[in-house]
Amino acid sequence: MTLDVGVLGYRFMGEAHANALARLPMFFPDAPAVNRRVLVGRDEEALADAADRLGFESTATDWRDVVDEVDVFYNLGPNHLHAEPSIAALEAGTPVFCEKPLAPTLEGAEAMADAARTADVPAGCAFNYRFVPAIQYAKQLLEDGTLGEIHHVRGRYLQDWLVDPDAPWAWRLDEGLAGSGALGDLGSHTVDLLRFLVGDDELAGEIERVSGHLRTFVDERPVEDRDDDVETRPVTVDDAYSAQVAFENGAMGTLEASRFASGHKNDHTIEIHGSDGSLRFSLERLNELELLRDGNRGYETILVTDEDDPYVDHWWPPGHVLGWEHTFVHENYEFLTAVAGEASRDDGEAFEPSFEDGLAAQRVLTAIEDSDERGEWVDLE
Amino acid sequence: MTLDVGVLGYRFMGEAHANALARLPMFFPDAPAVNRRVLVGRDEEALADAADRLGFESTATDWRDVVDEVDVFYNLGPNHLHAEPSIAALEAGTPVFCEKPLAPTLEGAEAMADAARTADVPAGCAFNYRFVPAIQYAKQLLEDGTLGEIHHVRGRYLQDWLVDPDAPWAWRLDEGLAGSGALGDLGSHTVDLLRFLVGDDELAGEIERVSGHLRTFVDERPVEDRDDDVETRPVTVDDAYSAQVAFENGAMGTLEASRFASGHKNDHTIEIHGSDGSLRFSLERLNELELLRDGNRGYETILVTDEDDPYVDHWWPPGHVLGWEHTFVHENYEFLTAVAGEASRDDGEAFEPSFEDGLAAQRVLTAIEDSDERGEWVDLE
Amino acid sequence: MTLDVGVLGYRFMGEAHANALARLPMFFPDAPAVNRRVLVGRDEEALADAADRLGFESTATDWRDVVDEVDVFYNLGPNHLHAEPSIAALEAGTPVFCEKPLAPTLEGAEAMADAARTADVPAGCAFNYRFVPAIQYAKQLLEDGTLGEIHHVRGRYLQDWLVDPDAPWAWRLDEGLAGSGALGDLGSHTVDLLRFLVGDDELAGEIERVSGHLRTFVDERPVEDRDDDVETRPVTVDDAYSAQVAFENGAMGTLEASRFASGHKNDHTIEIHGSDGSLRFSLERLNELELLRDGNRGYETILVTDEDDPYVDHWWPPGHVLGWEHTFVHENYEFLTAVAGEASRDDGEAFEPSFEDGLAAQRVLTAIEDSDERGEWVDLE
Amino acid sequence: MTLDVGVLGYRFMGEAHANALARLPMFFPDAPAVNRRVLVGRDEEALADAADRLGFESTATDWRDVVDEVDVFYNLGPNHLHAEPSIAALEAGTPVFCEKPLAPTLEGAEAMADAARTADVPAGCAFNYRFVPAIQYAKQLLEDGTLGEIHHVRGRYLQDWLVDPDAPWAWRLDEGLAGSGALGDLGSHTVDLLRFLVGDDELAGEIERVSGHLRTFVDERPVEDRDDDVETRPVTVDDAYSAQVAFENGAMGTLEASRFASGHKNDHTIEIHGSDGSLRFSLERLNELELLRDGNRGYETILVTDEDDPYVDHWWPPGHVLGWEHTFVHENYEFLTAVAGEASRDDGEAFEPSFEDGLAAQRVLTAIEDSDERGEWVDLE
Repeated sequence: MTLDVGVLGYRFMGEAHANALARLPMFFPDAPAVNRRVLVGRDEEALADAADRLGFESTATDWRDVVDEVDVFYNLGPNHLHAEPSIAALEAGTPVFCEKPLAPTLEGAEAMADAARTADVPAGCAFNYRFVPAIQYAKQLLEDGTLGEIHHVRGRYLQDWLVDPDAPWAWRLDEGLAGSGALGDLGSHTVDLLRFLVGDDELAGEIERVSGHLRTFVDERPVEDRDDDVETRPVTVDDAYSAQVAFENGAMGTLEASRFASGHKNDHTIEIHGSDGSLRFSLERLNELELLRDGNRGYETILVTDEDDPYVDHWWPPGHVLGWEHTFVHENYEFLTAVAGEASRDDGEAFEPSFEDGLAAQRVLTAIEDSDERGEWVDLE
Repeated sequence: MTLDVGVLGYRFMGEAHANALARLPMFFPDAPAVNRRVLVGRDEEALADAADRLGFESTATDWRDVVDEVDVFYNLGPNHLHAEPSIAALEAGTPVFCEKPLAPTLEGAEAMADAARTADVPAGCAFNYRFVPAIQYAKQLLEDGTLGEIHHVRGRYLQDWLVDPDAPWAWRLDEGLAGSGALGDLGSHTVDLLRFLVGDDELAGEIERVSGHLRTFVDERPVEDRDDDVETRPVTVDDAYSAQVAFENGAMGTLEASRFASGHKNDHTIEIHGSDGSLRFSLERLNELELLRDGNRGYETILVTDEDDPYVDHWWPPGHVLGWEHTFVHENYEFLTAVAGEASRDDGEAFEPSFEDGLAAQRVLTAIEDSDERGEWVDLE
Repeated sequence: MTLDVGVLGYRFMGEAHANALARLPMFFPDAPAVNRRVLVGRDEEALADAADRLGFESTATDWRDVVDEVDVFYNLGPNHLHAEPSIAALEAGTPVFCEKPLAPTLEGAEAMADAARTADVPAGCAFNYRFVPAIQYAKQLLEDGTLGEIHHVRGRYLQDWLVDPDAPWAWRLDEGLAGSGALGDLGSHTVDLLRFLVGDDELAGEIERVSGHLRTFVDERPVEDRDDDVETRPVTVDDAYSAQVAFENGAMGTLEASRFASGHKNDHTIEIHGSDGSLRFSLERLNELELLRDGNRGYETILVTDEDDPYVDHWWPPGHVLGWEHTFVHENYEFLTAVAGEASRDDGEAFEPSFEDGLAAQRVLTAIEDSDERGEWVDLE
Repeated sequence: MTLDVGVLGYRFMGEAHANALARLPMFFPDAPAVNRRVLVGRDEEALADAADRLGFESTATDWRDVVDEVDVFYNLGPNHLHAEPSIAALEAGTPVFCEKPLAPTLEGAEAMADAARTADVPAGCAFNYRFVPAIQYAKQLLEDGTLGEIHHVRGRYLQDWLVDPDAPWAWRLDEGLAGSGALGDLGSHTVDLLRFLVGDDELAGEIERVSGHLRTFVDERPVEDRDDDVETRPVTVDDAYSAQVAFENGAMGTLEASRFASGHKNDHTIEIHGSDGSLRFSLERLNELELLRDGNRGYETILVTDEDDPYVDHWWPPGHVLGWEHTFVHENYEFLTAVAGEASRDDGEAFEPSFEDGLAAQRVLTAIEDSDERGEWVDLE
């Protein structure tokens, strides 16, 4: 059986997922066969070019025509387009894979999770960083109790593409279109990774309370391609956020993200200290994990590219490093495998991160925003 | 003229300062001559041994007999002994050099700063990390505007000596004796360094608002040397703290310290991002500064050991690295020079960090504690 | 026009190149269209499986049937199969892309280069590390004179897959099949990279003299899958080599490779010191270049993933790192572009690294072996 | 009993040792008491200033008047002054501590070692880097067999103070005064450290054969302070050397040093690969050791500042890093302890590194020079 896939969105994320789909047969031959059936967008010319280059059979300008005609629906559009098409697809019984953050508002995320619960088909939220081999390896170590009781957690996602005040306005800077700024775009990744890594009851558990801080350093920005008569638009989202968090089981954490961190391009760093050890990870060196084991004296820099490291046997020999895009191949492999299992039998393992995970992250982000507005700690019920 | 110095405290800090005094003549020949006149402590036997080893002429068991008999009084005792002897010395017109944090309570710090204002002799607070050459070099860069407008500040001081729940109780774990835990012991260094580096009006300015979070992971600990009948005492201070801070001029920051950060021994890290560059410093690699300059693409790892680097011409050729203790030599040199200047003429330059700086740091720490108790942001007036 | 490609070899390198060919249309849309026409190998079953997975139309067990039937011939077989099929293809006027080292012996490499000179079609030697963006960026810096006059060059390629004396015998350990060991397999990469980076007349120029040192630490190894009656075969190649080299223009260098460097998986490091700066590169962190510029004080760690970095505009935004396999996409793009240019007009730019480059590297390697045998420096004529 | 010490040389090394002597009582209270008796030099005025600052009782301009009048003679003069005064002192029965390299020529070193053998008092060669705590810790690990059988050794000492062709001439650039350049000054440290770390019979054993390469990049240099009429003097020593070495037990190594390595100030790096692990050390981060242990996957960065690390209990708590100069305190402690032991009883443990060690290093350096001249490998008998 071949899965017909419909994809909404053909820019950055569209390319990342199309590439992943294209690579599965060669490297994950047991993945379900996939047909890149239809690419959805508004600008017909750009869409046709993209469909050609990304290997889609056809195009459509209205997602309504697509969601019930395909076996899987990928929602890779801007955040404000996440809820409606995803819900429609789920209501049509079509499995959905949606980019993060799940929705620009908590209400949207809740509606999406509701739809997923009702639909009983896989509904995945594409937090791709769970699928970095070093992160999967860290997860195993944590599950095995290697770090002991968790005391400290640190998550930091630094970029610098807005530090120039003349950097142009974009949809990501508008609250209506994006929901939030660095918080949603980057912070959602951090929250999801921490939930994945230490969220188990035996470890730190869920985040229970947060204290947030949001800042917009530059309030308006020029609209691109309007050089004669310079026009600006307001920036209505945060350029940076920080947060303090308290976990169920007593661990404490600090979170942070910025688009103003000069010199940092895509620097997502996770640090965890437990009673028996510590670990550190940086996305800019994603093949590496720094691990302090019980009995050792310092952090060990591990190149997570051995044959028995997660997913690595599908690729190259030890030391032949993977890139950012491989995380998409891994997550597509897992998601499509779940879809195929679901399609053929009832007991298919659910795919995670699911819409529930997307909602859980959104709850934390919303609480951080609330806390910033109210100037006090906010509990997650 | 030779300055007679009286020193209260003969353990860790006593040794660090005695060593600094002993090294001045060889490496800072223009420093005032110093006579290690009298060492003050309670345990006469241990005191006598220490005085012998650390090169003191005599000992005393009551600081009251000392503070008006010497030219300079060093207060290196535990935190709860900072206020009274220091104030008495200042009231006697004796310059005082006091270890950090200035006092266990804000009231104590205010009384000390009052006494200093009245006394009109140098009153220094021994935040030695200002005197790391790499920090002084960073300060110059910041003053020159190398980093532009400051957006982000991060300060983190990680140790792990309490991660073992059987680590013994000590005076540093008692609120009455120490004031606070990681917050006062480690956080005071962080707050002072950030004030020093970016506190100028042209940079981030002072810290205006804070949100704090304190945790005690282990509530009681065994008393050492009571093996037969194991006795424990309560831990009444924080094992770790974190804070979010907002600066006058709009920069945001996160602070953190812990005695539970497995694998970190004395890891004091400062990170600053500005509109034109960034910098990073770690105390465990104190000869280095990582700097992103405008026009460069990445952080440059600078070994701050060149002849024209701050204080370095007093020591060794480039690349012959300095250690932790050299910071004490530099701060003693500056403090004693200020004392000698003060003694001979009225217009002597004031020594910084002063009791005012100690008080300013204490205000931030107290606000962090208040914020943690109240669950909301706290303004510094 | 679509190029029909025939490929000899379907294991590690077969997969790396098939993947590269498959990815060109999506990321390098201006690359010539390619038809994976025929895959050549001896084991029919394994070959059929590989052809299916790697996307080839057909298979063949004799390269003689292929070399004049395709538009391009890829020779990715073991070293002892490099010369004959490549020469036959060139004699048939078919462009050839051959894996490195060009041949197991100098005579073989000379015959191949002769055939390439006569044939007047592109004959490429697949030194893929020239096509790492950070290496291309380093090349630009060197050509621009950023490092000034070159004094020192260091090249080191460390692996550890043979450190266990029970690691099984393989064809790479037989002189007849492989030519040499670490020297040819790893050292050929190092020599080619150094020739690429500093071989220009204005920089260090060619290597003029060498002194070599080869070692075999384990002389025989078990044959795999013969557990009952343990059989061993002799190791007749080097496990490690080192060399000192002198360049035309006075620079000096040290080279080294090993399969016994515990803890190093694929650690190819290049270091260059010039009168105005220095640079460092490590393959295990292939997205980074460490650069000391004139006027700076230390090495700057540059993440070479900006839009204007070589090849990066074809991929992802800044900080979204590439992997090892991307080097194959880049080299295939360049090679096929040269082939297409050659096919349509006479003035097509030659592809480099060519068979001449493969021969030049082989000359250095052979001189290193000769030097080791003779115990003295050997001149390259 | 107090040892009267006479010291020849009052510049860089004079200061380093005077500082070490001055610090012993406070930090190594069980060290023999020392009296800085007499400082020897030629320039009376500079000498008097130095004696005052460095704490010497008196001065002398002729070492002949000193060597038999003191309990210990320190020879810290330029290399060409090592042999005669050291031999005279030993002939007078005075223990000698001589800076490295032991002598500018092999003949000189042999004569010195002969004198030491005859004298039967401690004769130490001041290879201070043996006394870095991290090196002592590495030595223990190696002795315990942590790295298994040694395969590879790498030693590299990089500086850049001569990369500017206008850097002034100095005695270190004259063969008659210095013996050799980077080879003797820096390479002697490397050879000694490797002998110390892996020279035991159970490890790599002694160096058996060498192949050397020496280069002088700039042949003449301006004499300082002759600005009007620029005068130059020839550089008659090497600016840089490299060597390949073969050890008794089959390990291979590469050595290198340079004064032309832009960006490196005092970068002495040691790397060792064994069958069970690897280690790395860099002098610019001398508090750290990178260790790959059997069973671990990557190098562990160890801060060698724990209480039970070598010498560390004499200093500060964990993480309070030491500097370059502490190595002198440790070596003076060991040397003077040996002297005091020798003085009071016959069975005193010999101090190492001794003149024999200095001679052994000199033999390797001389063989490297010979090899470079002859263009072939040279055996050490």
